[in-house]
Amino acid sequence: MALPMVSEGRFGIAAPEGFGATAVHAGVKRRKPDLALMRSETPATAVGVFTQNLVRSPVVDVAQDQLGRGEAVEALLVVSGNANACTGPEGYEDTLRLRASVARRLGVRPEAVVVSATGIIGHRWPLERIEQGLERLPVHPPVEDAPLFHEAILTTDHREKSYAGAFPVGDRVVHVGGAAKGSGMIHPNMATTLGFVTTDAQVERAALLDLLREAVDETFNLISVDGDTSTNDMVLVFANGASGVRLSPREEGWEAFRAEFTRCLDTLARAVVTDGEGATTRLKVEVGGAATREEARRAARAVASSNLVKAAMHGHDPNWGRIAAALGRSGARLDPTSLSIAIDGHYYYRHGRVRPGPERIPVQEEIHVYCHLGVGEASATAYGCDLSSEYVRINSRYHT
Amino acid sequence: MALPMVSEGRFGIAAPEGFGATAVHAGVKRRKPDLALMRSETPATAVGVFTQNLVRSPVVDVAQDQLGRGEAVEALLVVSGNANACTGPEGYEDTLRLRASVARRLGVRPEAVVVSATGIIGHRWPLERIEQGLERLPVHPPVEDAPLFHEAILTTDHREKSYAGAFPVGDRVVHVGGAAKGSGMIHPNMATTLGFVTTDAQVERAALLDLLREAVDETFNLISVDGDTSTNDMVLVFANGASGVRLSPREEGWEAFRAEFTRCLDTLARAVVTDGEGATTRLKVEVGGAATREEARRAARAVASSNLVKAAMHGHDPNWGRIAAALGRSGARLDPTSLSIAIDGHYYYRHGRVRPGPERIPVQEEIHVYCHLGVGEASATAYGCDLSSEYVRINSRYHT
Repeated sequence: MALPMVSEGRFGIAAPEGFGATAVHAGVKRRKPDLALMRSETPATAVGVFTQNLVRSPVVDVAQDQLGRGEAVEALLVVSGNANACTGPEGYEDTLRLRASVARRLGVRPEAVVVSATGIIGHRWPLERIEQGLERLPVHPPVEDAPLFHEAILTTDHREKSYAGAFPVGDRVVHVGGAAKGSGMIHPNMATTLGFVTTDAQVERAALLDLLREAVDETFNLISVDGDTSTNDMVLVFANGASGVRLSPREEGWEAFRAEFTRCLDTLARAVVTDGEGATTRLKVEVGGAATREEARRAARAVASSNLVKAAMHGHDPNWGRIAAALGRSGARLDPTSLSIAIDGHYYYRHGRVRPGPERIPVQEEIHVYCHLGVGEASATAYGCDLSSEYVRINSRYHT
Repeated sequence: MALPMVSEGRFGIAAPEGFGATAVHAGVKRRKPDLALMRSETPATAVGVFTQNLVRSPVVDVAQDQLGRGEAVEALLVVSGNANACTGPEGYEDTLRLRASVARRLGVRPEAVVVSATGIIGHRWPLERIEQGLERLPVHPPVEDAPLFHEAILTTDHREKSYAGAFPVGDRVVHVGGAAKGSGMIHPNMATTLGFVTTDAQVERAALLDLLREAVDETFNLISVDGDTSTNDMVLVFANGASGVRLSPREEGWEAFRAEFTRCLDTLARAVVTDGEGATTRLKVEVGGAATREEARRAARAVASSNLVKAAMHGHDPNWGRIAAALGRSGARLDPTSLSIAIDGHYYYRHGRVRPGPERIPVQEEIHVYCHLGVGEASATAYGCDLSSEYVRINSRYHT
């Protein structure tokens, strides 16, 4: 219903009006496109959320600083294949230099350029190669090149993760577009999560940031591939107003925007776990009956990120005992005598009692786990993926 | 130096005077011994620490209750292969019934018998078979049968984990013995950790419990195989006084006892990670320069239990970037500009700067990681193991 309103030929983060995106190969990766550019034709309101890791790439520090000061943004450059993390003061200088180079190339102020990165840790960028690559990037990337952007930001993840949606406000149409990269690396190193959202709505900065925080909490912050938080994670939003529609909380169109925005992040977040390293199935964990929302989240994440649960799901084994154990150590209060656990709609454990059930979970794209803690009314949903030998293989290969 | 004082023919938990141990096959497991009995010739002071998991086997509830009330203990029975967890009120009744059966068989009060269990979750014990097995257990297990006890408590772990030590106090000798089971399961289910320590010293209950808590915090609580806490974990200590030596804090022999006791738990804990499911190498993570002891512990455990670090260690890849990322998300304060990371004695990252180093970690029994956080003086050591495809294989096999 929303999709038909996305104009033909527009894709992902270039679905909203006034955004273009492309990528080139600069030589950070061996062969694939590795330098991705998104540009807004007019300065966009920009907000972001950033990794909580104390060991952070300087690209995170610089982006957080400039967005925190409320700088309007005209371009996003993503270096894919090298995270520029643990690179000391030189890595910080490199970030500022690259940002300035992008600004020169595009004819905008450095503060209007955000730089993001993903890839191996502990190696400085090949800056000269990257700057040579910049020269081959079009100053105004055409909308039809957007798939190249989506492809370039991937490292070892296999599938592009995109979203494009739209909704009407009066006789106008507002678009929301999104791009993400998930867990994978060109050399096994770090499962960086990047998310980028664009919209042609005009939205005031504070409201956009509130909305982003709320939506990330319900989506990206509830997924887990392996429990490791990257040095480079960021989710950024750019709102350029090209639709001519101005949106504010509690006014016309806001709820539709909020729904579309959340759907965008939800789609991207689920795409990230589906494409988790070595993943063969997605795991959806719903927890109800929790004392508080926070406890429901903790319980759902504990199950979705338990190695034992994930390995069982890999074997299509309805091993509810491991789910019970993960809930019990999650820190969420629960009542063992009313604890209930269902897998794919069948209760294997109900009000503290074992019930017979199918001995095997059928092979499918998503396995659904439902847990009721029996102590309250709060609920939450987390997404994860199974743990496969392929995950170990990917992450134990010699990295140099 | 300590070992020669252990009498010939005495092993593990039967190394101290006045303790015997044995096991039989009752039919909980298919073939191997599964019913293990330890007996003290005289009532022993007994203390324990128990799993923090809210989903707990009733054997944990019952043991914690009786030891909490200060009951002296004459026997320990371990059922191996079935955890009696998530078995509802019937599981609780089964525990009390089995405890009473053991007491009748041995001619002691039920409160003098502790029952422990490990194995699959969600299945009731085959109580009649277990009680038939009891009839074949000797009322006074001979000391030379102790290896059978050690073998019986294993599930899928491969090697018996034992300790036997001694030290002189005046012209007498005090012994400390220990047994543990680690991560593994007869059917893939739960990585229960059990630890049992015996001593022929006479020790007052409160002092013994303090010592146990302190030593467990430094040993068992700093190991991780897969981050999942079992429903059945317990570490128990039995002190029967048969050496004729009475020990109290700040009096003669106490420091030697404390050292021997801690060495016992440390040996058992390291044996547990060495024999972790699918493990091919042990990981020792020392953290220094932390702001507080608690933060040092958090940082060390975060590294030792990171899937990405563990997978890298499996591949003998000195992937210090993943170690930095794990430290950064651990919750411990650190100074990125003075952070240092060494693997096997070589600094790959020193005061926030990358340094060249060997590209491969040699194959060895233990990989040593040293991290300095650069913010304080506190330190801690954690032990883990690598993450192998074998771990996934063990834990994804169909469990019924």
